[in-house]
Amino acid sequence: MPVYQQNVPQNVAPKVTIVGVGLIGGSIGLALGQRGLAKQIVGVGRRQQSLDRALACGAIGSATVDLAAGVAAADVVIVATPVESVVEDVCRALAAAPAGVLVTDVGSTKTNICEAVADNEVDSCGFVGSHPLAGDHRSGPEHARGDLFDGKTVVVTPTKATLPETTERAEVFWKSLGAQVVQMPPEQHDRALATTSHLPHLVASALAASTPPEWLPLAATGWADTTRIAAADPKLWTQIFAQNTPSVIAALDCLIEQLQAARSNLVADESTQIEKFLHQAKRTRDALGN
Amino acid sequence: MPVYQQNVPQNVAPKVTIVGVGLIGGSIGLALGQRGLAKQIVGVGRRQQSLDRALACGAIGSATVDLAAGVAAADVVIVATPVESVVEDVCRALAAAPAGVLVTDVGSTKTNICEAVADNEVDSCGFVGSHPLAGDHRSGPEHARGDLFDGKTVVVTPTKATLPETTERAEVFWKSLGAQVVQMPPEQHDRALATTSHLPHLVASALAASTPPEWLPLAATGWADTTRIAAADPKLWTQIFAQNTPSVIAALDCLIEQLQAARSNLVADESTQIEKFLHQAKRTRDALGN
Repeated sequence: MPVYQQNVPQNVAPKVTIVGVGLIGGSIGLALGQRGLAKQIVGVGRRQQSLDRALACGAIGSATVDLAAGVAAADVVIVATPVESVVEDVCRALAAAPAGVLVTDVGSTKTNICEAVADNEVDSCGFVGSHPLAGDHRSGPEHARGDLFDGKTVVVTPTKATLPETTERAEVFWKSLGAQVVQMPPEQHDRALATTSHLPHLVASALAASTPPEWLPLAATGWADTTRIAAADPKLWTQIFAQNTPSVIAALDCLIEQLQAARSNLVADESTQIEKFLHQAKRTRDALGN
Repeated sequence: MPVYQQNVPQNVAPKVTIVGVGLIGGSIGLALGQRGLAKQIVGVGRRQQSLDRALACGAIGSATVDLAAGVAAADVVIVATPVESVVEDVCRALAAAPAGVLVTDVGSTKTNICEAVADNEVDSCGFVGSHPLAGDHRSGPEHARGDLFDGKTVVVTPTKATLPETTERAEVFWKSLGAQVVQMPPEQHDRALATTSHLPHLVASALAASTPPEWLPLAATGWADTTRIAAADPKLWTQIFAQNTPSVIAALDCLIEQLQAARSNLVADESTQIEKFLHQAKRTRDALGN
């Protein structure tokens, strides 16, 4: 018996269109296909070349560079383009898709996106924001995996104006791919993610950037782990920081404060304070597990 | 044909004594045993309980809580105790071992250790400092692995007073366990490691400590990677920071400067500068590989 039958209604999304078939979009296509959840998976992209790569790895069944045509018959549209393009793509999808469509996105920031979609003149009652906490430092449909969302958290971010049924459909959709769903307002999502996702990227990059390359032969596992996400796409992350600047700055200030306190304790040779700080950090890290 | 015969002279260390049989000491014992490099592997520890665990996993062949007795017949002594105890254990080993012994340690800091051993009244011509860049966030002989040093770097830190033959024997010893050896003065080691090892620990801990535990369900792979080493032993790392304070502070100041620059660029919405910074970080990270 397929997994989805145990948890969710069948045929939650017979006709799905994925706008942007990179790592995340491609993985959604593979997950839908492998779980037999969709009758039709259409990929929409800007360049035929990217679409051909997604077709080649079986992430989508058909492809078009024409967004309006791609969503014309869709029950569900997932916008998985870079955060800078999400608002425009969501609004174009809402305008061109049939009545009753569910449109959601996978952007790493939510306040700007949800506000801009609501402020747009298009009818946005079929839209709710989503953010799957799943990914990889690699990009492109070649690295897509059908199990990318298995057991992972997807945050769905309804606003006061969102119809409850739209939120519920998005929740059912993500659960059908194996994810757990957490609901919260976009602003709360952005504050939390500034600390749990955006700040780590900034810090990993600062650590890599402050290491002279000639010392790399002396970098062991600790440096490798701590800087791993500095290998991510700089363009994509510049956009994410730009979309969540106030929360990222607040999170960064909190971190700098911690580092300054540690510095003062090092200068004063306050070993007891240093050990207390390391214990507090360990408790939080241990609470996450691997 | 055993691996060591291809690279190093046989019987480089017929009688080895390991003082401190935790993760690193235990892994040295397993590596020696698996490669057939030692006729006798003696473990020295403070508590019989730890020694029994090391005996149980085959890391050592015999055990004693009496350091002087444990090193009395040794050709090679490896001191793998916490950095705070290294100097005392090295000096006791030098005093009690036969003439011609090689004594080295595995401490994460080198200047303090090498200076203190040289300043001691014991004859230190058989000692040279070592630091294997291999480890695990777990500790104890249960997690020891015979391949822990395979392809890893070991820094050997001779001073002007070190006999060339002592350095050479330490180099041959580590190579026999599968490691690559880099030689540099203790001060240079400590400056580099402050950035490539000690700073990442401080930063991982600050990141974990500045994350409210209630946001952990929103922590994805990036947070998990970047904070992984915050799970390490707080006591051990407090000692390491205390042993290398000036270099750690210098490395920390360099990082805080990078973070402040990133903050200014975020405030000023200087996306081009942010992207440039992320590119520079990515180049350094990519240069390391996985």
